Amino acid sequence: MSSDNRPIGVFDSGLGGLTVVKDLAKILPGEDIVYLGDSARVPYGIKSLATIRRFAMEDAAFLGRFDPKLLVVACNTASAAAIDAITATAPCDVVDVVRPSAAAALAATDGPVGVVATEATVRSGAYQRALAADGAGREILAVACPLLVPIVEEGRDGDDPIVTHVLCDYLRNLQRLRPGAMVLGCTHYPLLAGPIGKLMGPATQLISSATAAALDVAHRLDAAGMRHARVEGGSLRCHTTDNPQRFAELGATFGGRPLDHVEYVGTDELEGLVARRPVKS
Amino acid sequence: MSSDNRPIGVFDSGLGGLTVVKDLAKILPGEDIVYLGDSARVPYGIKSLATIRRFAMEDAAFLGRFDPKLLVVACNTASAAAIDAITATAPCDVVDVVRPSAAAALAATDGPVGVVATEATVRSGAYQRALAADGAGREILAVACPLLVPIVEEGRDGDDPIVTHVLCDYLRNLQRLRPGAMVLGCTHYPLLAGPIGKLMGPATQLISSATAAALDVAHRLDAAGMRHARVEGGSLRCHTTDNPQRFAELGATFGGRPLDHVEYVGTDELEGLVARRPVKS
Repeated sequence: MSSDNRPIGVFDSGLGGLTVVKDLAKILPGEDIVYLGDSARVPYGIKSLATIRRFAMEDAAFLGRFDPKLLVVACNTASAAAIDAITATAPCDVVDVVRPSAAAALAATDGPVGVVATEATVRSGAYQRALAADGAGREILAVACPLLVPIVEEGRDGDDPIVTHVLCDYLRNLQRLRPGAMVLGCTHYPLLAGPIGKLMGPATQLISSATAAALDVAHRLDAAGMRHARVEGGSLRCHTTDNPQRFAELGATFGGRPLDHVEYVGTDELEGLVARRPVKS
Repeated sequence: MSSDNRPIGVFDSGLGGLTVVKDLAKILPGEDIVYLGDSARVPYGIKSLATIRRFAMEDAAFLGRFDPKLLVVACNTASAAAIDAITATAPCDVVDVVRPSAAAALAATDGPVGVVATEATVRSGAYQRALAADGAGREILAVACPLLVPIVEEGRDGDDPIVTHVLCDYLRNLQRLRPGAMVLGCTHYPLLAGPIGKLMGPATQLISSATAAALDVAHRLDAAGMRHARVEGGSLRCHTTDNPQRFAELGATFGGRPLDHVEYVGTDELEGLVARRPVKS
């Protein structure tokens, strides 16, 4: 059987993409992973699409240095804003989190589909387009939930009354829609899957964009005969644009295990990797 | 009487500093103001002190181009992390928001003093040091309120039950302290002064860091005979590292008036202005 021992490149605006890494490591334990978290410029979800696109292109270019066999855009906002631009320039296949999540939601139900995501992801229309393309006639509702990322980063858990109040507020219209599936369209949101599931009820299947992306990666590697020859013991090498120690400390929550190898890379270095054009949209 | 017709430079991580601009324009209506909002890298308050310091130094260097007579660090987080570094290199006098706010709080009461601020501002200890230096023996309590900036940016107002719930949670220990004065130690927070005042009660005087900084600017200009010769009709010129149209739209909430003149400046341009060292803290 053929194999490819190069690493998988994964990037996110910060720590959230480590939920994708966690699922990747579970599904593909032999693969080496190189991760970049752009913690100095986090979050992407509140910025203009042009700025998000530029940051994402720089992140992808940085990971290109490691000769990845596959690139994972583990950030819904970057996927929504920049997947076409990244795919057009990447030296390898690119997996985003939006398309696999939309496909998984449509496969899970014949009924309406809900999406919760950042403001920029909803504004980009990427989920709405992906769901409408393959799910013609479906009722679709995408709701922006700007407070959920800071809530997760503050370390609040599902029992916290603030979490309940904020979720009740955001999910009101989605509860009325009674979706058969709902995409957790931000890599931070799986950490709130418990309280979200309770509020939506058992008839709504929650789709984690992290899991959907990890399954898509496995599928693509298998189809191309590009799995690592090793079946377990893969490594994880992390890079961050902010303080590496802080990244390692906070990242353990997301990745579910200690992060032993975190290096600093400056945003000035990233900014130098891609030719610039003025921001227009 | 002597005068100085050069502009005042003001910067913030994003839109929040426009609350300082609003108070400056009220107190010093003749002054020209050049503003930089680093919206592409906002917020600063969740990042490491070294990264905040680097961003703030770049922001200050950019404003240096306009030959300002005075530089205002209109961001509590940047003031807390970088005031010494900026003061050491700036070509003019520098006003921050922390020291004037601490002084105003101590002047307003002989009792305990409270502070609400971002996580990085509280972690830096800048308010605690400034209050302890001039208010020996005072009870001081600084509380980090990470959700308040995203709540303000989401456009929620004081009647929103989410705002009440979140404020009750953050202010619990401050209510027990019964402070005579409490600093709103983030330029976003004056937009929540209504509900914060209701929860703290009339015995706690709220100190807006925006107003305190604007009064300090007026005081320094008067002391140095550096007011503009004009007494009204000053101009406002804004720059942002993200989309200028979006900045103008959202900025009207903070500045209280339309922003007619907003220009784009790239973060790559800012990154080039200051020599770089690796992030250590």
